Amino acid sequence: MTQLAPIDLRSDTVTQPDEKMRLAMSVAEVGDDVLDQDPTMRRLEERVADLLGVDAALWVPSGSMGNLIALMAHLRRGDRFLAARGAHVLDAELGTAAWLAGGMPHPLEWDVAPGRVTAESVRAAAGAPGPYYTLTSRLLCLENTHNAAGGTVTPPDEHALLVSAARDIGLRVHLDGARLWNAAVGLGLPPAALTVGVDTVQVCLSKGLGAPVGSVVGGTATFVQEARRLRKMLGGGVRQGGVLAAAGLIGLDRIDDLEADHVNAATLADGLVELGWDVVRPETNIVLAEVPDLEVTLSGLRHLGVHASTMSGKVRFVTHRDVGAEAIAEALRRISSAS
Amino acid sequence: MTQLAPIDLRSDTVTQPDEKMRLAMSVAEVGDDVLDQDPTMRRLEERVADLLGVDAALWVPSGSMGNLIALMAHLRRGDRFLAARGAHVLDAELGTAAWLAGGMPHPLEWDVAPGRVTAESVRAAAGAPGPYYTLTSRLLCLENTHNAAGGTVTPPDEHALLVSAARDIGLRVHLDGARLWNAAVGLGLPPAALTVGVDTVQVCLSKGLGAPVGSVVGGTATFVQEARRLRKMLGGGVRQGGVLAAAGLIGLDRIDDLEADHVNAATLADGLVELGWDVVRPETNIVLAEVPDLEVTLSGLRHLGVHASTMSGKVRFVTHRDVGAEAIAEALRRISSAS
Amino acid sequence: MTQLAPIDLRSDTVTQPDEKMRLAMSVAEVGDDVLDQDPTMRRLEERVADLLGVDAALWVPSGSMGNLIALMAHLRRGDRFLAARGAHVLDAELGTAAWLAGGMPHPLEWDVAPGRVTAESVRAAAGAPGPYYTLTSRLLCLENTHNAAGGTVTPPDEHALLVSAARDIGLRVHLDGARLWNAAVGLGLPPAALTVGVDTVQVCLSKGLGAPVGSVVGGTATFVQEARRLRKMLGGGVRQGGVLAAAGLIGLDRIDDLEADHVNAATLADGLVELGWDVVRPETNIVLAEVPDLEVTLSGLRHLGVHASTMSGKVRFVTHRDVGAEAIAEALRRISSAS
Amino acid sequence: MTQLAPIDLRSDTVTQPDEKMRLAMSVAEVGDDVLDQDPTMRRLEERVADLLGVDAALWVPSGSMGNLIALMAHLRRGDRFLAARGAHVLDAELGTAAWLAGGMPHPLEWDVAPGRVTAESVRAAAGAPGPYYTLTSRLLCLENTHNAAGGTVTPPDEHALLVSAARDIGLRVHLDGARLWNAAVGLGLPPAALTVGVDTVQVCLSKGLGAPVGSVVGGTATFVQEARRLRKMLGGGVRQGGVLAAAGLIGLDRIDDLEADHVNAATLADGLVELGWDVVRPETNIVLAEVPDLEVTLSGLRHLGVHASTMSGKVRFVTHRDVGAEAIAEALRRISSAS
Repeated sequence: MTQLAPIDLRSDTVTQPDEKMRLAMSVAEVGDDVLDQDPTMRRLEERVADLLGVDAALWVPSGSMGNLIALMAHLRRGDRFLAARGAHVLDAELGTAAWLAGGMPHPLEWDVAPGRVTAESVRAAAGAPGPYYTLTSRLLCLENTHNAAGGTVTPPDEHALLVSAARDIGLRVHLDGARLWNAAVGLGLPPAALTVGVDTVQVCLSKGLGAPVGSVVGGTATFVQEARRLRKMLGGGVRQGGVLAAAGLIGLDRIDDLEADHVNAATLADGLVELGWDVVRPETNIVLAEVPDLEVTLSGLRHLGVHASTMSGKVRFVTHRDVGAEAIAEALRRISSAS
Repeated sequence: MTQLAPIDLRSDTVTQPDEKMRLAMSVAEVGDDVLDQDPTMRRLEERVADLLGVDAALWVPSGSMGNLIALMAHLRRGDRFLAARGAHVLDAELGTAAWLAGGMPHPLEWDVAPGRVTAESVRAAAGAPGPYYTLTSRLLCLENTHNAAGGTVTPPDEHALLVSAARDIGLRVHLDGARLWNAAVGLGLPPAALTVGVDTVQVCLSKGLGAPVGSVVGGTATFVQEARRLRKMLGGGVRQGGVLAAAGLIGLDRIDDLEADHVNAATLADGLVELGWDVVRPETNIVLAEVPDLEVTLSGLRHLGVHASTMSGKVRFVTHRDVGAEAIAEALRRISSAS
Repeated sequence: MTQLAPIDLRSDTVTQPDEKMRLAMSVAEVGDDVLDQDPTMRRLEERVADLLGVDAALWVPSGSMGNLIALMAHLRRGDRFLAARGAHVLDAELGTAAWLAGGMPHPLEWDVAPGRVTAESVRAAAGAPGPYYTLTSRLLCLENTHNAAGGTVTPPDEHALLVSAARDIGLRVHLDGARLWNAAVGLGLPPAALTVGVDTVQVCLSKGLGAPVGSVVGGTATFVQEARRLRKMLGGGVRQGGVLAAAGLIGLDRIDDLEADHVNAATLADGLVELGWDVVRPETNIVLAEVPDLEVTLSGLRHLGVHASTMSGKVRFVTHRDVGAEAIAEALRRISSAS
Repeated sequence: MTQLAPIDLRSDTVTQPDEKMRLAMSVAEVGDDVLDQDPTMRRLEERVADLLGVDAALWVPSGSMGNLIALMAHLRRGDRFLAARGAHVLDAELGTAAWLAGGMPHPLEWDVAPGRVTAESVRAAAGAPGPYYTLTSRLLCLENTHNAAGGTVTPPDEHALLVSAARDIGLRVHLDGARLWNAAVGLGLPPAALTVGVDTVQVCLSKGLGAPVGSVVGGTATFVQEARRLRKMLGGGVRQGGVLAAAGLIGLDRIDDLEADHVNAATLADGLVELGWDVVRPETNIVLAEVPDLEVTLSGLRHLGVHASTMSGKVRFVTHRDVGAEAIAEALRRISSAS
């Protein structure tokens, strides 16, 4: 029996730089970025700042570092931060929000919809300021789309209510926008419509946009100045990073392409439902399926050449630019054949 | 109008050392405890170790330091720990479990009863070991009685199931026993019946037992050796601490006296219910009352010379050895008179 | 052969509370100091603030915690602090200045005299402010008397030059005054003459003054407010601490008694020199002796019932109120007899 | 007057990827390296491990992160590490060795030659193990070539004595080999001759070798496993990093080219000496010049189109592959013309 060509739906992080990106990298104008002299980095950072509607932005090697830098800038010892249960900063960054940024996390239940919380629960969780020996609620950390909930989207009106509640009670707001582009495309809105009122935001270039390496963290000019120092501390200051920024710039030209990933995710979800799977229709590019035995299902899929991952105790398929509509159809055929 | 003599039910931490304790302090044999040469300290630590059924024990200036030292000994960067929602280590220690001990907390819902969780939810929260870039579930932190839940007691069979679940999945177990004496008295069991299988445990001398200062943390001899070093790091190594240990030893003679505090708490709760308050009957010495407006109620009580505190959004009365049955009756009379 | 009664010159930390102190402890008025309601604590803190010429002060369980709290208040990630080589914060606090307070230490050579540095070397070490990716020199940490140098005294004019240099280049100043009382008595000056211009200062009650437990950290009211929170974080918030503060207040009445310790130290040094030892005449209560083999000497002394310790590779004798002039003479006799 | 074309001798970090490197990047085979599936990364890491004579290696975004990861792996709270004064981990990594890796640094004087220390001073600084409340000397951190000392080389016999001394007293050894290639070329030895006996080593691809981004940290397989986790914590886990590894592989082909940089540095130094400058003949590619007024000299040089930096209070010229022999001659002409 011939080996089936693998269809890799584990994550959109597996996307590969294409010819155009590689060409851009090979001709990128570069400089020493620790010395703040890489022109392609500057172009990338300015463009992202524009797209996000923030004053300034800074390239970082990963989304984890972007979130970490923002949390380090916001939090002090004795501070508490709030985030919806399952948030990347809670579950998927090896606890750095706690031990390195210094915050005591307070997870919020998903009371609106998966991955989404009400302004009321933000207010309740923050509580009133207490005596000197109590935690200070300092930060609300949003995530849009919310990865662990299955790429769910917080719409702008709900975002506004959350930011407004946070402001009322003196909280700062960080937005983990690793897949903010997907949220924007899913809503048919510009990304800046989803960052209104936040202090800091992080977006990834290396997921759906297909750049090989890098994220960007944005906020005020003062924040970015501090972020540059924090990046150096963490070992994320790089030299001729313009080769990566060049790829990121190409990625930013392709935000609208994410629509195809969303269509493919919907197709995949519909197909799985038809095959009797317990799947919720995705809002963006992440399909979660409830199965009786996670390991059995994953291994069965792998045998069929369909690679998935796990998230929140479910099977997780992530669509992306390197798996087209035909490959999705083929994945469904393979799964169907084994049913 | 004459000022009413205050009845202080804010916490059992307000208890004052009595004559006998002060006498013991004034004649205590002491030495330099940083050099490990305070004989009264040694006696106290050995006695607590015996009472708790652990190999060894170490005096610390506070329960917060005791918990912190235990968590520092158990946790490493990248570790996650589990604790019932509202646990002291989560909400009342200024985040040190996170930023200083280094653990990412995972709060567990109260699914058995207030302050109590099932072994199943421990297993589910810990999850299966993941790849290198995921958190390692390392520690289960129990609290008995559970302060924020209103002094609720975890019985020994339930404790055993929790410890057993933790063991099965490779978790260590720390028991925050700041009020373990109350749990033991409430159940009519020796304290050691409630520490079975734990790695480390912390108990307070300065709450219901009435000593002015101090807690004790216990575990294996190896742990206590490490704890002594951690205590020095945190600035908790003291010189002639025997003066405080002497008070602690007297406190340990008075564990059974806590029964009176529990009777008083029940009397107070019953009286409040009769007056129409929304109060759950207490299991030990903490009475929580749900009220429409916390600040109004607290200030009204203060006006009547009845001092209470707040906990989990409720009014909290804590009975203790410095407020006897008559004072409880008087408190109820005052509250009744104002109704 | 009969066992010789031990003469304990290991440290002035071994001093025991005497009858008067114990009596004061046994009648001390106390309250819950975490709730800021211990009147004896308040009296102690106000008295120390007056003595030191600072706005406010806070009791802490140890000198190590006092220094740590001050450094935590001053330092941020990316900061450097300067201290004379051998400083307690560098060598004797388990690295907390680095890993917990967050400062990168820069040791200064003793260029004036043992334990003392010039303003020029402060300026040179601090350097000019550099680009964003370089350390920020933030703090000068003084120690008076300097323990590891043998209780050496920095006189007020030299202190003033150091503080002035620090101010000029934007450094804050913390004074580790664990034995500041000795420096003041040695110079015949009030303690406040040695704290001029510092931001924070720490003094011990449990060394030469003979209190069983405790130190005090002082500075502005704002600093003390922050210090109270930091103390709670570290587990140094205690309940009825007034029992210890009462002993501290008695200790403060005895500052002038330290003169006798200094005389005894001089007598001991002179006697040792007569016996051919390599000893520098002490400025306060610490005698350092250079010996060919540290372990052999210490064990020989122990055999004679004279207990000493080691410091900076030398034998260290510390005189204190529990070893009077006769005991010093006896110690010399014993050492002489064995020569 | 026409602007002079700048000759950039600030650092070898300004080197730019050339055509061949860019071509390699544009055709590199890549995968998701967080998932450990980037074949070019694997090739790079294996090749560096071979070159260094260590079991395994891991790409990191910067030398600072490589050193930090090694120190995090070696150090615990309460540990002390030793390093020659001016070491990069002491002065140029924003204190992360202290506040993040957790070590209390102990700088060693340069007693052999600039940047070099004797085994005796390692032994003396480490001291004998002390009681529980004292620092544990844990690590010796070497740096070869030593940047702040002017690119000085520790020869293999001296290295062996240092490692041997460290072993005898239970210290681990980390080698900061950011410019180890220069040391090897300077000595005419293979790089592995300079890593004998170390536990961990870090080398840079982005300095003299000219790769745009990246360093490699090596050691045992167990260390590299831990390092991978630490890298993810710090936000240094990247996705399709093979594009950078491809450049690094080309850089590794060019180690011998560093000889030209050394010749150029010698030429520059000789020329400056002829012009009356106070310059020590360089051992590798760093020329330090003592000048009366640093800022005046640097700005004068800049005016001539010769860009230098500062190090240890001196003017620092670093030769590298993007400044050839002719440009060096031109730099000397410009300086001469202004003398």
